[in-house]
Amino acid sequence: MQDKWIVGVDLGGTTTKLAFLTTSGEILQKWEIPTDNSDEGRNITCNIAKAINEKLASLGENKNRLIGIGMGAPGPVDYENGVILNVVNLGWKENYPLKEQLEVTTALPAAIENDANCAALGEMWKGAGGGAKDLVCVTLGTGVGGGVIIGGNIVQGSNGAAGEIGHITAIPNGGAPCNCGKTGCLETVASATGIVRLATKEILKGDLKGELAAKQAANGKITAKDVFDSARNGDQMAVKVLDEVTFHLGLVLANIGNTLNPQKIVIGGGVSKAGDILLNSVKQQFNQFAFSSVKKSTELALATLGNDAGVIGAAWLIKNKLNL
Amino acid sequence: MQDKWIVGVDLGGTTTKLAFLTTSGEILQKWEIPTDNSDEGRNITCNIAKAINEKLASLGENKNRLIGIGMGAPGPVDYENGVILNVVNLGWKENYPLKEQLEVTTALPAAIENDANCAALGEMWKGAGGGAKDLVCVTLGTGVGGGVIIGGNIVQGSNGAAGEIGHITAIPNGGAPCNCGKTGCLETVASATGIVRLATKEILKGDLKGELAAKQAANGKITAKDVFDSARNGDQMAVKVLDEVTFHLGLVLANIGNTLNPQKIVIGGGVSKAGDILLNSVKQQFNQFAFSSVKKSTELALATLGNDAGVIGAAWLIKNKLNL
Repeated sequence: MQDKWIVGVDLGGTTTKLAFLTTSGEILQKWEIPTDNSDEGRNITCNIAKAINEKLASLGENKNRLIGIGMGAPGPVDYENGVILNVVNLGWKENYPLKEQLEVTTALPAAIENDANCAALGEMWKGAGGGAKDLVCVTLGTGVGGGVIIGGNIVQGSNGAAGEIGHITAIPNGGAPCNCGKTGCLETVASATGIVRLATKEILKGDLKGELAAKQAANGKITAKDVFDSARNGDQMAVKVLDEVTFHLGLVLANIGNTLNPQKIVIGGGVSKAGDILLNSVKQQFNQFAFSSVKKSTELALATLGNDAGVIGAAWLIKNKLNL
Repeated sequence: MQDKWIVGVDLGGTTTKLAFLTTSGEILQKWEIPTDNSDEGRNITCNIAKAINEKLASLGENKNRLIGIGMGAPGPVDYENGVILNVVNLGWKENYPLKEQLEVTTALPAAIENDANCAALGEMWKGAGGGAKDLVCVTLGTGVGGGVIIGGNIVQGSNGAAGEIGHITAIPNGGAPCNCGKTGCLETVASATGIVRLATKEILKGDLKGELAAKQAANGKITAKDVFDSARNGDQMAVKVLDEVTFHLGLVLANIGNTLNPQKIVIGGGVSKAGDILLNSVKQQFNQFAFSSVKKSTELALATLGNDAGVIGAAWLIKNKLNL
């Protein structure tokens, strides 16, 4: 099996990431193609199959080098049946049989999973997980996603909704509206969007002046990165926003710790690029709210795979399914 | 195997419950003995072995009728190694090899687990679980315990601290001190003790008069049952306390739902005897804070096994271990 490759695919709304990996998870080739959402998403799996064949040809490799394909997709997935339940922005109708379509077009055994879960599996296998089989991953991006892994397997939940960490209610009273229809979800404060929202609110209050407010005045907008950059420089308003974000994030992660006591809680996604200033502040809050033995035994860590987590986790899916 | 029995034991600080069960979980005999904590807990396993032999003799049965023993014990348990990590009130020193001692004294294969986890397994097997393999159980008693079951197995956690639902921080700012050293834990508001504390605080405020305040005046104290009884009668103060309790409990359970999306969340323990007035109020709060697909697919239910949950879950432990 050592000379065989597996294919990992991370399907996004605009770009699809692909990779060939060894069965021990080393990326040999990675590349991207645009995602074609037209015609009710009918071209998506064909384009993936075509891209794989073209890449093989360009490498002078034969199709029998490949033994399986794993894929992460946005939105809720029925893992057992290989069905995407609902992904409006990819054009697919409800209950699209993605695994079957992928198997037909690529002629490879396939497995599919939600993309946040794939990222969690990737971090478990080759990233910050470091061998941990009980691991929770929270992805702070435009939104907030999550994946819960127990005993090396993703917890799916009764309706595929396990790991909806972004929709944990962080602010039960008077929280901001969330896209999901609730209010006060973690996503409203700990996503890039949420951080900008909190910062903009502070700026509009006008009580504090300084670097962050100046950036807003100069550029007409700020980003989550601006908040972390200014906080690193000691800007009072940015530090206040950072404290608010990490208070809620630390509390939520501590309560997940108190429920599951995983070996690791991994913080990933674009926002996690802020690095230690984020991690240290979350840890401080986590330690305040975690049960003593959880505090001692559940470690917080930053994700290490960046954008590769998805394709690596997708590859793990099919490796695991085929018992490689 | 159908004519073989398993032994379930639920070890408490003052009383030890024992039962003989069929391999399909029907209780054939149940009885209790006092727990003898003296002499660093040395007599506990001997007394259990003796009680089993005496009961067999009284039934005219032979020892080879039995095929295994499962036991739930208070405090953190290392399930793999069969070790009790720390149980001060039973006299045992740290890392007491309970499974081994139980096997030596009873000459039966043994399995041990934390008592709250046993109750959860019992409810899964023969109680409110109704076949659910992903189930969270919260036990509202003097304290608040919990058990998390994924795929039919207890989630142990990195340091045996999974399921510490009572120590989820429900009130991050200004909460009451908890026995665990933190403040604002769910246990400080949703245990019998916590409910009495909240009610007493209301009574001392003196803003509201009525049935509950009158009970306190008449008896010099109130119980959690008094609060539910008066709430059922529409007493304004009791309803206020109930709302406060179920707001926090519903929020915590919804956030567990958002993390794990289990098929069932079962509410047990003495406080759960309050019945529908508790369940309905918790459901209302849960629905407010649960992610839409969690609300649809995670069901809240009251425990149905009462005090038998522990011995039934303990029996399941050994049944499962022996693959019966």
